[in-house]
Amino acid sequence: MNVGAVLPLVLGISLLSLLVAALLARHVLSADTGRPEMRAISDAIREGAEAFLSRQYRTIATLAVVAALLIFGFYFVNRDVKNIAEMGAGVVWKITLSFVTGALCSLIAGYIGMYVSIRANIRTATAAMTSLNKALQISLRGGAVSGLSVVAMSLLGVGGLFYLFGGMQDYRHVPLQIVGFGFGASFVALFAQLGGGIYTKAADVGADLVGKVEAGIPEDDPRNPAVIADLVGDNVGDCAGRGADLFESTAAENVGAMILGIALYPVFGMGGILFPLLARAFGLIATMVGVFSVRCREDEDPMRALNRGYLVTTVLAMLGFAAAVYLLLKPAAGFGGEVRQGYLLAAGIIGILTAFAFVLITQYYTEYRYRPVRSIAEASRTGPATNIISGLAVGFECTGLPVLTVSAALMGSYWCGKMALGGIPGSGLYGTAIATMGMLAPCAYILAMDTFGPITDNAGGIIEMSKQPEAIRQKTDRLDAVGNTTKALTKGYAIGSAALAAFLLFRAYLDEVTKITGSEIGVDLTRVPVFVGGLLGATLVFVFSSMAIKAVGRTAQVVIAEVRRQFRENPQIMQGTAKPDYARCVDIVTVGALKAMVAPGLLAVLTPVAIGFLFKYLSPYGHLGAESVAGVLMVGTIAGILMATVMNNGGGAWDNAKKYIESGLFMVDGQVVGKRSEPHKAAVVGDTVGDPFKDTAGPSLHVLIKLLSTITLVLAPLFI
Amino acid sequence: MNVGAVLPLVLGISLLSLLVAALLARHVLSADTGRPEMRAISDAIREGAEAFLSRQYRTIATLAVVAALLIFGFYFVNRDVKNIAEMGAGVVWKITLSFVTGALCSLIAGYIGMYVSIRANIRTATAAMTSLNKALQISLRGGAVSGLSVVAMSLLGVGGLFYLFGGMQDYRHVPLQIVGFGFGASFVALFAQLGGGIYTKAADVGADLVGKVEAGIPEDDPRNPAVIADLVGDNVGDCAGRGADLFESTAAENVGAMILGIALYPVFGMGGILFPLLARAFGLIATMVGVFSVRCREDEDPMRALNRGYLVTTVLAMLGFAAAVYLLLKPAAGFGGEVRQGYLLAAGIIGILTAFAFVLITQYYTEYRYRPVRSIAEASRTGPATNIISGLAVGFECTGLPVLTVSAALMGSYWCGKMALGGIPGSGLYGTAIATMGMLAPCAYILAMDTFGPITDNAGGIIEMSKQPEAIRQKTDRLDAVGNTTKALTKGYAIGSAALAAFLLFRAYLDEVTKITGSEIGVDLTRVPVFVGGLLGATLVFVFSSMAIKAVGRTAQVVIAEVRRQFRENPQIMQGTAKPDYARCVDIVTVGALKAMVAPGLLAVLTPVAIGFLFKYLSPYGHLGAESVAGVLMVGTIAGILMATVMNNGGGAWDNAKKYIESGLFMVDGQVVGKRSEPHKAAVVGDTVGDPFKDTAGPSLHVLIKLLSTITLVLAPLFI
Repeated sequence: MNVGAVLPLVLGISLLSLLVAALLARHVLSADTGRPEMRAISDAIREGAEAFLSRQYRTIATLAVVAALLIFGFYFVNRDVKNIAEMGAGVVWKITLSFVTGALCSLIAGYIGMYVSIRANIRTATAAMTSLNKALQISLRGGAVSGLSVVAMSLLGVGGLFYLFGGMQDYRHVPLQIVGFGFGASFVALFAQLGGGIYTKAADVGADLVGKVEAGIPEDDPRNPAVIADLVGDNVGDCAGRGADLFESTAAENVGAMILGIALYPVFGMGGILFPLLARAFGLIATMVGVFSVRCREDEDPMRALNRGYLVTTVLAMLGFAAAVYLLLKPAAGFGGEVRQGYLLAAGIIGILTAFAFVLITQYYTEYRYRPVRSIAEASRTGPATNIISGLAVGFECTGLPVLTVSAALMGSYWCGKMALGGIPGSGLYGTAIATMGMLAPCAYILAMDTFGPITDNAGGIIEMSKQPEAIRQKTDRLDAVGNTTKALTKGYAIGSAALAAFLLFRAYLDEVTKITGSEIGVDLTRVPVFVGGLLGATLVFVFSSMAIKAVGRTAQVVIAEVRRQFRENPQIMQGTAKPDYARCVDIVTVGALKAMVAPGLLAVLTPVAIGFLFKYLSPYGHLGAESVAGVLMVGTIAGILMATVMNNGGGAWDNAKKYIESGLFMVDGQVVGKRSEPHKAAVVGDTVGDPFKDTAGPSLHVLIKLLSTITLVLAPLFI
Repeated sequence: MNVGAVLPLVLGISLLSLLVAALLARHVLSADTGRPEMRAISDAIREGAEAFLSRQYRTIATLAVVAALLIFGFYFVNRDVKNIAEMGAGVVWKITLSFVTGALCSLIAGYIGMYVSIRANIRTATAAMTSLNKALQISLRGGAVSGLSVVAMSLLGVGGLFYLFGGMQDYRHVPLQIVGFGFGASFVALFAQLGGGIYTKAADVGADLVGKVEAGIPEDDPRNPAVIADLVGDNVGDCAGRGADLFESTAAENVGAMILGIALYPVFGMGGILFPLLARAFGLIATMVGVFSVRCREDEDPMRALNRGYLVTTVLAMLGFAAAVYLLLKPAAGFGGEVRQGYLLAAGIIGILTAFAFVLITQYYTEYRYRPVRSIAEASRTGPATNIISGLAVGFECTGLPVLTVSAALMGSYWCGKMALGGIPGSGLYGTAIATMGMLAPCAYILAMDTFGPITDNAGGIIEMSKQPEAIRQKTDRLDAVGNTTKALTKGYAIGSAALAAFLLFRAYLDEVTKITGSEIGVDLTRVPVFVGGLLGATLVFVFSSMAIKAVGRTAQVVIAEVRRQFRENPQIMQGTAKPDYARCVDIVTVGALKAMVAPGLLAVLTPVAIGFLFKYLSPYGHLGAESVAGVLMVGTIAGILMATVMNNGGGAWDNAKKYIESGLFMVDGQVVGKRSEPHKAAVVGDTVGDPFKDTAGPSLHVLIKLLSTITLVLAPLFI
């Protein structure tokens, strides 16, 4: 394949995907919107979500403008320093422009996800009144709008900037200039995920504690003033937040893999640098086919239909990956050695299998068919304390298998890379980069399944609140249950890809530093500044988690106070004769969440910067600014992967232990122990504890990990 | 000072300390043992504790013999390999002998601690009937028996082996030959702490859940069949376990610091190698004076008296430290450079101040005078879920300050070392080693305060169970409250010293590897095997914690079933007309705890070994056995420090949030909310969750961290 044709092809496929996303959106929006009472609820959700997003975006935009100015300033002041001058002409503007573009695209990605989901919810609910298949298709296609556009935009952004900055001519510098794109994306994603995550769980915990526990009314009961805020939360947390999160994943990893490709320019030429983009573009095509292939029989488990679509996507993605390998990863003119492409493809397959393994492991730890969740249900028999203890034990335990998987994938793909290129320097690491690309090939489909979650959750809420017949509710409940599973799977997938990608991004960072200084650096933990960096990086993960969790608690307290006030001041609400003031609750959570997201976000951004500058100038420790930041990055990443796994899977396991008891399958001495029993009450406590774990702190940690990488990539030249 | 006189002086001071410990023990044992009904209880505790310990020791001894044979075998098979042959004549025997001696001393240290504490409890209780001061003195002196003998034995062991193996002649090899002593000590300590920790919390949780929650009887009620097991647990967990733990800390750190001293032989000569022993010996003298200086007025807070003793010890230890610096750390004949001893002393003072800072930070996070514990009490108003969430948030948050302290201490002492010796290689690290020595100088006093905890706890239990008058109970309650504080402080201190020492031990490991291979190695996280090692090391901490916590849960379930059975089969127990079968409960917990301790213990021991051998032989990754194990060690240590801090302080904060509510100081809207209120019930849940955190997993992690260091030190030559 002519290398000159790759970028146009990638950009063409990306535009096609955006077109398909637009058509899907039109298809979803053209569906029926059901009864007026349902519309009333859906409208309230939409208004609340849009109000939150517009306020949140104003805050984030302000922060991003400040960050852009600082980046511009740092680079401008140091523009004549050798490090920076060597990054190519116009680097000051280009880095800043990349940052701004990345930030903007990330905001748009979040917005698209939410725009469709808050409109797909009522249409799914309405479709469920006639056909499960139709409801499934509307919700999945609504999700796919988000999945396709997120991945397409990241390709357009990275590919477009690469083209614009003249990457085809100046392959050596341009990838370093577009690292700002990844940083912009993760900067926005961090705040989007934090703000959304705090919102959704503060509303949820607040609504549950006063509603279910104090007032004794069921979940999603329209008498609860916080119930709309709770439904809004699903959209702003899961759709907008996760959209920005996965946008930045794909963006950062594209850039990182391209930087690693530079090192192998003598081997593959331009093909090695453009390979990540083409592999991802083929993955988009695979996703489109996969999404259109999903349909289910009325009596079938919708999860099986989704899994079939995933399988179709994966198989096609693998074929596309193979095509990309054979088209681009071949010896460049002038390379004397041999390239064994089979090994490169094998590295990609390792990545795809790793994605599968993560999905299986997540299922094992979070579904009630298996031992871990059942052990939590069992422990609930002796009360909330033992429920919590066993949930935490499951959370800590569940780090084992994912880490073994990642370790095996790293080692296996490293070996493949070495074998492919006869062990030349950089070949092993390019193998791990290819594995990361493989893991991310079906990314758009995974994201579609993820956004499917809040859509079906909302659909269920709308049906419940508008008091539709039991038969319809059963259908939406089935979809909702599937949505819970897919949400858990996405998190497992996101953390797995973060783990693999982290290694890729470190390496890119070190390659960049090496290119700038001309001498190889290592991250030697036996040096005091590097060790201190590592220690602080790991601590950052813990303190950040604490702040995120506390933010939920604090915001939830405000919600609780407001709901209690409404119940007290207007007793007609509980009698069902007066409508509660939903809007005020939505408002209160919005203000609370936005205030609370700033501190942890800034902590995450400022810690590596502070450490880098500190050790740059402290001479007794050897001016190890770049190395100590690398310590922050690597040990912080390890701690982040582990803590995120604990929180995601622990939270999911608690949730499903409660669902297991509610399902009527939990037996003690031959008797069914179900809803409203003592073990159920204990399980509700566990579920509530798990909420900020799995929906606020855990997902924010994914973003934190990648933010650490992208921020160090952008600021590396300043630390040397 | 003549260097030849140092070892005799150190050994002399150690023997003197043992003599004083024996006199203290006689003094304690000669005290009055009170009324027959109290003796009945104390006898039951003693029998249970001794039965547990003898069974546990049989299990541990078996494991240790297997380990000794394996070590012997590994070294014997490889005795002609260059690495090992170069460690000096008779290394096979010497390493094995060191291991066996270390293991044996660790067992003895644990035994002494427990022997005295299970006899001091009743004597403290009896003394409390007449005088608070007498009770305080008996319990502290009982604790000091353990503190003095632990530290003295570690000095005797390390100093004795050094002398026996001819260290005064062959200073280059002998410190490497006695690393086995530290490994033996930590091997035993790991199982002792795990087994004891599982025992104590399984009994506690089991007794509380059936007693307080189900049957509604108070804590320490004699009708509860598990109550004796609970009191036994305090001894086997806190005394025997912590004794072995701190024994291995002092042993491992002595050996590590001596190894670092070898590198500076050209500077200090023999003095640099023997310095750690002399500094520690002077610390012993300071402790003896400190313990004897403690007395309190009848109306005074006993904590103030203990703090005065701590202050006396610290000041004297600092003076002793200064003396050791000026006597031993002076330029050797032939060293041309300058030695600025003031900076070396400053490094030591940094260590002592670090110990103080840790004590303050721990108090801040675990006492109810401060925000963190109060925030948990506040959160209890909305039920157990919010109590747990805010407790976990406090736990995660509280990693921040200790890490900043350790980072500052590492950097400061490194700088001092450099300044002292004009920046010659190894000088900075010797500075950090001196800081560690400084931190450990008052170690024996801290250990005395720690063992004071279970003695007073038991004394309170005996008074409560034998239904003594309220006035006496108030006195023991005051002592018990102080004991809870000192227990928390010791944990903070232990983790702080572990953090500093870890760095020292890494460095010793690397020095050893360097000495063997002749070329410097680093721990470069950007290499795949090292990164995988780091990832697995951190994961080990999480999975190990999970296993420890689950072991408590599983064993507690057995206790619960047994107590329920006794209540059901003999209704007279609840009426108070029949004595429950305490012995059976003790027996059940013993069997359960011993079974449960084996798996996590073996996991901890085998993980680094497996990784070392794996990467030694896997050629595509460059035969990085030693480096990958160093990755396990360093990242595992970072993760371990953080998780142990989370668990210790989180658990302590939950405990005291409950106590805060019970104290009657917790007000809501101007009303006291106290015992039996809803917030109190929520706080009890948090306390129960915190129990296995702070008394099983947390303390076991301290040992794990140091076990990782010592095991790698011993096996390093085999990984190369």
